[in-house]
Amino acid sequence: MIFVSRKEHFNAAHKLYNPKWSEEKNREVFGPCANHNWHGHNFELIVTVKGNPDPDTGFVVDLKKLSLLIKSEIIDKVDHRNLNMDVDFMEGKMASCENLVMEFWKILEPRVKKLGSLCELHSLKLYETPRNYVEYFG
Amino acid sequence: MIFVSRKEHFNAAHKLYNPKWSEEKNREVFGPCANHNWHGHNFELIVTVKGNPDPDTGFVVDLKKLSLLIKSEIIDKVDHRNLNMDVDFMEGKMASCENLVMEFWKILEPRVKKLGSLCELHSLKLYETPRNYVEYFG
Amino acid sequence: MIFVSRKEHFNAAHKLYNPKWSEEKNREVFGPCANHNWHGHNFELIVTVKGNPDPDTGFVVDLKKLSLLIKSEIIDKVDHRNLNMDVDFMEGKMASCENLVMEFWKILEPRVKKLGSLCELHSLKLYETPRNYVEYFG
Amino acid sequence: MIFVSRKEHFNAAHKLYNPKWSEEKNREVFGPCANHNWHGHNFELIVTVKGNPDPDTGFVVDLKKLSLLIKSEIIDKVDHRNLNMDVDFMEGKMASCENLVMEFWKILEPRVKKLGSLCELHSLKLYETPRNYVEYFG
Amino acid sequence: MIFVSRKEHFNAAHKLYNPKWSEEKNREVFGPCANHNWHGHNFELIVTVKGNPDPDTGFVVDLKKLSLLIKSEIIDKVDHRNLNMDVDFMEGKMASCENLVMEFWKILEPRVKKLGSLCELHSLKLYETPRNYVEYFG
Amino acid sequence: MIFVSRKEHFNAAHKLYNPKWSEEKNREVFGPCANHNWHGHNFELIVTVKGNPDPDTGFVVDLKKLSLLIKSEIIDKVDHRNLNMDVDFMEGKMASCENLVMEFWKILEPRVKKLGSLCELHSLKLYETPRNYVEYFG
Repeated sequence: MIFVSRKEHFNAAHKLYNPKWSEEKNREVFGPCANHNWHGHNFELIVTVKGNPDPDTGFVVDLKKLSLLIKSEIIDKVDHRNLNMDVDFMEGKMASCENLVMEFWKILEPRVKKLGSLCELHSLKLYETPRNYVEYFG
Repeated sequence: MIFVSRKEHFNAAHKLYNPKWSEEKNREVFGPCANHNWHGHNFELIVTVKGNPDPDTGFVVDLKKLSLLIKSEIIDKVDHRNLNMDVDFMEGKMASCENLVMEFWKILEPRVKKLGSLCELHSLKLYETPRNYVEYFG
Repeated sequence: MIFVSRKEHFNAAHKLYNPKWSEEKNREVFGPCANHNWHGHNFELIVTVKGNPDPDTGFVVDLKKLSLLIKSEIIDKVDHRNLNMDVDFMEGKMASCENLVMEFWKILEPRVKKLGSLCELHSLKLYETPRNYVEYFG
Repeated sequence: MIFVSRKEHFNAAHKLYNPKWSEEKNREVFGPCANHNWHGHNFELIVTVKGNPDPDTGFVVDLKKLSLLIKSEIIDKVDHRNLNMDVDFMEGKMASCENLVMEFWKILEPRVKKLGSLCELHSLKLYETPRNYVEYFG
Repeated sequence: MIFVSRKEHFNAAHKLYNPKWSEEKNREVFGPCANHNWHGHNFELIVTVKGNPDPDTGFVVDLKKLSLLIKSEIIDKVDHRNLNMDVDFMEGKMASCENLVMEFWKILEPRVKKLGSLCELHSLKLYETPRNYVEYFG
Repeated sequence: MIFVSRKEHFNAAHKLYNPKWSEEKNREVFGPCANHNWHGHNFELIVTVKGNPDPDTGFVVDLKKLSLLIKSEIIDKVDHRNLNMDVDFMEGKMASCENLVMEFWKILEPRVKKLGSLCELHSLKLYETPRNYVEYFG
């Protein structure tokens, strides 16, 4: 079994703000991330699939097809958007990296399976900054 | 003469939208950067000063002091903010990297001079993404 | 379960020198790393914790708190220091990355648990150079 | 148990082309990677070994020896070469990253064991570009 | 005047081989870069234009248009190609980075001027590896 | 004229400490950089030469020869060393990046000229950390 990864990126605005809490509590818990008028990031998303290489191609997965899948299903919905306001699958959820990768997983996991009988989704890694990132294995 | 550089970063939301133009013209010129609800970036700012080293310290400038100056005068005003709505010196201006570095210059140039008689501001370089950046020499 | 990582850095001097061995044997085993007068590195430390996100915050762990913990418990004790001479928990041990991460683990593991009932320390990754690094899972 | 990694690099030409298929099918499956006259990459190879540190050295493995082993057994055979034409262990195989790491494993796994009784090969990670990479655990 | 830069990349094969010289002399001068069957790189190209920002857009140049220009005029002609065999403007020339940027300049300089009355080409920087690069100012 | 650059690295210990001053004044001016027992860095040195390409090679300078020159004249003298104690050309000088590049220039400038009649030294850039660096043009 081999693990194959593809990195894509998107630029988005968000804020961390729990509407059930007061302004003060939000500021206390989230600090500047609760800024009313948003802030933003260059996010990097690494999608890893696993499987056995096809002897005819040498590929676990065609990375061009995987890249197009990530772009059409994820990047097109979050790039140059507001993660709190413009993204249907984040509605009613805190716009944290943890919640983002769990939603990305629900979207990508069944679609990666259809890319080929040989591969399945293994992990999603999401960088919010070069110093802060999360990883999820489903 | 030696050129000494310090890199700092900030995370901010912005949009590129000219209020004198129609929604259509904004979309045509700025594409997804005109998204009504903003998007954002991890910006990297490189401040370069030039001068002759002080023989007692070996320094053109104390980089700790330069870093504190950039933080108090620039980063504290733009980090985790909306560049169109929250930053007084950007009011009425397009929130492009070009306009940002020109405003940063006006703020930093006189203050760098006061850091020491030996140095002056040489350039500002601002990365919006690892692939897009601007540089300004005053 | 989600894995959340924070990267911090420190600059330190060290040497690899076993006092039980002759100068010749140290030079033979450790090469230039045994230089009597030390050498040094920009170390990068990645701390990964795991847990389930809190629905109220969307966080496995507050990365600001994790960053402050790493700084007060590790970085403040090793940054701009000599790892052989200035760091109490390295006394009597070879100042290798392997030994460093094992000592860092002993310090961080109980303290990460107290950051929240939802998370625990998963791994420590320590870069000595961009080409040489170690990882430890406890 | 500690995991120790060393990164090396090589520059090579290759193409993805299945001689059992027509030119059209190759173009359809591999796109520009099937270019008749080759293309190339700066590959990065990360070799990870695992084991317990030797108390006398603080090392799981002497990274200088590991680096020399990777250079003599892998890099010298693939650097500034054509992966389809110049590399004996790739003969008759598609020159994909998946096939490369499986062949590298066969070469390195027994030789890493001989570096010391304390360590064994854990994984190979191969970057074809900063956005595309594979990982293999044997 | 502000300097605006855009980074693009391409993957190509090449060799350094002077057909006027013997095999021995080529090996002596170019070392492994003269390998008969080619080798290759992930090249990074940074295009810098200079000018005054348009007050209506805040832009010296629309980076989306500059990116499309670089892609159609340069990247499409060199990406996944053999620089010695597949690129008409390199015919009869040594496939060195120095010669590449001089040819890229001839192509881009007049076309950048047409992107807007406000900007002109300032420099081209070409990375062959992260450690080797050239820069050209026309 | 084309500018050609080569990046090399070295790992060294140093401290910033002026023996003419009291311990208190050193701590006040240099902060943790004055730590008695040293600290250290992974330094990156970028050497840029300029000239016209030789039509027979396509090269301004043979980067292999430039790399060997930097290694024999600079890296071998500073790598895995203490910049205050082990480096003859830094004797009696503050071990700042500013002083380092000025000394490196004196060593490299005449030797680069001898690499070929076509090239001369243009600049030296020295990174102490990814956020702090100096540049010198002679």
